[in-house]
Amino acid sequence: MTEPMTMDMDTKNQQFDEDLEKILDLLEESAYFKARDELLKYNAVDIAEMLEDVLEDFGVEKVVILFRMLPKDISVDVFSYLPGDDQVSIVGAITDRELSYIMKEMDFDDKIDVLEELPANIVDKILEKTPREERKLINEFLKYPENSAGTLMTPEYISLQETMTVGQAMAYIKSEGLSSETVYTCYVKHGGRKLEGIVSLRALVIADDDTLISDLMETEYVYLNVYDDQEEVAEAFKKYGFLALPVVDNEHRLVGIITFDDIMEIIEEETTEDIERMGGVMGESDKEYLDMGVFRHVKNRLPWLLFMTVTLMITGTLISQFEAVLSQVIVLVAYLPLLMGTGGNTGTQAATLIIRGLSVDELDLKDVVKVLWKELRVSIILGIVLSIFNFLKIVIVDQQSPMIGLTVAVAMIIVVMFAKLLGGMLPMAAKKIGVDPALMATPMISSITDMVSSVIFLFTASVLLGITL
Amino acid sequence: MTEPMTMDMDTKNQQFDEDLEKILDLLEESAYFKARDELLKYNAVDIAEMLEDVLEDFGVEKVVILFRMLPKDISVDVFSYLPGDDQVSIVGAITDRELSYIMKEMDFDDKIDVLEELPANIVDKILEKTPREERKLINEFLKYPENSAGTLMTPEYISLQETMTVGQAMAYIKSEGLSSETVYTCYVKHGGRKLEGIVSLRALVIADDDTLISDLMETEYVYLNVYDDQEEVAEAFKKYGFLALPVVDNEHRLVGIITFDDIMEIIEEETTEDIERMGGVMGESDKEYLDMGVFRHVKNRLPWLLFMTVTLMITGTLISQFEAVLSQVIVLVAYLPLLMGTGGNTGTQAATLIIRGLSVDELDLKDVVKVLWKELRVSIILGIVLSIFNFLKIVIVDQQSPMIGLTVAVAMIIVVMFAKLLGGMLPMAAKKIGVDPALMATPMISSITDMVSSVIFLFTASVLLGITL
Repeated sequence: MTEPMTMDMDTKNQQFDEDLEKILDLLEESAYFKARDELLKYNAVDIAEMLEDVLEDFGVEKVVILFRMLPKDISVDVFSYLPGDDQVSIVGAITDRELSYIMKEMDFDDKIDVLEELPANIVDKILEKTPREERKLINEFLKYPENSAGTLMTPEYISLQETMTVGQAMAYIKSEGLSSETVYTCYVKHGGRKLEGIVSLRALVIADDDTLISDLMETEYVYLNVYDDQEEVAEAFKKYGFLALPVVDNEHRLVGIITFDDIMEIIEEETTEDIERMGGVMGESDKEYLDMGVFRHVKNRLPWLLFMTVTLMITGTLISQFEAVLSQVIVLVAYLPLLMGTGGNTGTQAATLIIRGLSVDELDLKDVVKVLWKELRVSIILGIVLSIFNFLKIVIVDQQSPMIGLTVAVAMIIVVMFAKLLGGMLPMAAKKIGVDPALMATPMISSITDMVSSVIFLFTASVLLGITL
Repeated sequence: MTEPMTMDMDTKNQQFDEDLEKILDLLEESAYFKARDELLKYNAVDIAEMLEDVLEDFGVEKVVILFRMLPKDISVDVFSYLPGDDQVSIVGAITDRELSYIMKEMDFDDKIDVLEELPANIVDKILEKTPREERKLINEFLKYPENSAGTLMTPEYISLQETMTVGQAMAYIKSEGLSSETVYTCYVKHGGRKLEGIVSLRALVIADDDTLISDLMETEYVYLNVYDDQEEVAEAFKKYGFLALPVVDNEHRLVGIITFDDIMEIIEEETTEDIERMGGVMGESDKEYLDMGVFRHVKNRLPWLLFMTVTLMITGTLISQFEAVLSQVIVLVAYLPLLMGTGGNTGTQAATLIIRGLSVDELDLKDVVKVLWKELRVSIILGIVLSIFNFLKIVIVDQQSPMIGLTVAVAMIIVVMFAKLLGGMLPMAAKKIGVDPALMATPMISSITDMVSSVIFLFTASVLLGITL
């Protein structure tokens, strides 16, 4: 018996790196069998990670050597865990025969994922060698819109008939023996392909052999439509915590199922997209940071930067309208960043909380008044605390006149209140008009608060210091 | 047969709201049975959501009426899906007998969750009425450190012996019949309680009845330690995509299992914490936005705001060192926000990408050189594009002298390069020294870039415009 893997992440990562180095050393020495044994101490997910590292650091030749060492069944699993780019690299370096084998053995949903990544000529070559029935199914699956439930589902599920007994059903499952995650919920079809109900393997195992499936099945179940967006799919999984959900077409015919393990990735991808948008980076996050080319990075970052350049220029123009104030009391320039920065920061805090709340369904559009009321109270307290702090610093440390301190303090309270209410409201307004609330984070909020904060500050100064504009 | 629920989220939410209103109307009219029928069209997750809404809008009395309408077994499920706060409210409003029933029937891990939320006196009252064996187990579970694997696990799992046959194992599972998610992986123990291997229900179903468990079980499995932090637990689930993972103590004895559905919540919580930190909000996100009091909101937001006030004041002081430049060329004040803002924005973009990359394990500390090289190239291109754009705007639209335009353009390239490299490096440096990289987002990056950008800009101006400081 081999040692079970420890999941203490730090030790594990270290062990992982050491073992990978050992394997590469063994390869150098042409000690292939030893290298293989070392490699096989890990499971398919880990081996895939090792191949990823090797591909990045040493290129595809070395990866293919390692890949060919693997027992065939494991190599298929490992292949399906690799990122799309790496799969494409490997496909380019192995023989047609090896490729055929992998494609034949892969789970159907993984196969679709790979085919979507590969260049058209290779896809055609693969489809040529695929049996006619399956080819038809693959073509059907490839036609679903990108990011729809249709592209995530697998047609590999257990379907039962209402009229079967539990004993018959169990015998049928034994004879089918599908992959692990697709077997735990079975789907009961009526007549042709219409989905009638679902029954869990657990219920089957516990029930008596002669119970009828129709008595056992649940007829109130959650299902997805084949055209649902992957974000909705992820929502449904997060909400209900099911292992798998059935996918039906517009005629309520069962066309496939989606399993939770494929959704974990989608949730991560969607969250990454949200986070990046909140940080002012556009574009899809379908590639890893390092795999993305320099120009793609530029393209993803430029839109917000240009937008903000324009708003910052407007802010500049607004500020220059107050030249009279600034040239008379040049010390105000030193406090301008303070007001603008605080506006941006407090607004961003509120916007971040609201965007996240909306995204995890803790908040709803109907909560808008509650949000505004909460932000109003929070901003008054924060505004007062920051005002006092700044007033004391300006008068005592900077030795400025109390009127300058008062100007900053008064402007501060107004700015904080404005920024908090804006940060609370803007994401909700975006959602209301069907725009992604994540776009209302730092870049948008700080663009607006920069403009407004500087005007509030300089206007307050002109009033309190009695300077005619 | 009732209509199956549609998962088209928009239609569903609307339907949901309408039905909830209908139920409340029926309650008003004392049409309890009709209200109950309407309620029971939904599953436990949805009913819990309805109760949440009712609690928020109408208070606990109304919720308890609805809650008492539910069949007992459903009421237990609904209760376990409610957020902690709401559970506490309901516990305060139902009878001891009702509470005992709920506590008795709940899954063990949910029970632990509830007990952790309840005030000590109620916990004691509940434990008094719990059978001795279970009380011992509960007390053991309650002792695990907060957010550890120990608090997430359930002791409800199927344990088999190596010497059993598949037939015996299936008969045993039938007799035990545990809750749905805990039954799909069975755990094989050796002698006392040491975990020896795992076997999936799928493998059992497919195997012949007289196969020995020892021949069927997998001895290379991933496991967790009872003291692992919930973040590590979530990592393991995300990485391997398993349904359940066994939890062992330091002697490798199996003490419980964690199932994937409980992890979905943890992943969401951890992501929320990351996002909030990136937006400058501290504190744990164990409560929903609206449930959190005003002072807790203030407390979570004040630390960063005070920190940034201090750095913004330093920026102000730095700027006032250049009073000579500013008072001679007051128009520069108008371009100061542009430089500072662009520094903050470009830095935040880079930091966001790196923080997320680190958090989903796409990036590693060893990638630091690759990250810097990528950011360097991206920043040069972005810097040049923004410089040209700004130069033209300043000279053509603002009608300023080309030297002013050149000052802004030169400073812009330097600022963008500095900010991108800082944004790329700071999260990695934080990780290196064991600080959460998420703390290196907007607030920290913009604090530093504000200071540096203004100095770069004003220093460039003094050199190019030939002004002695």
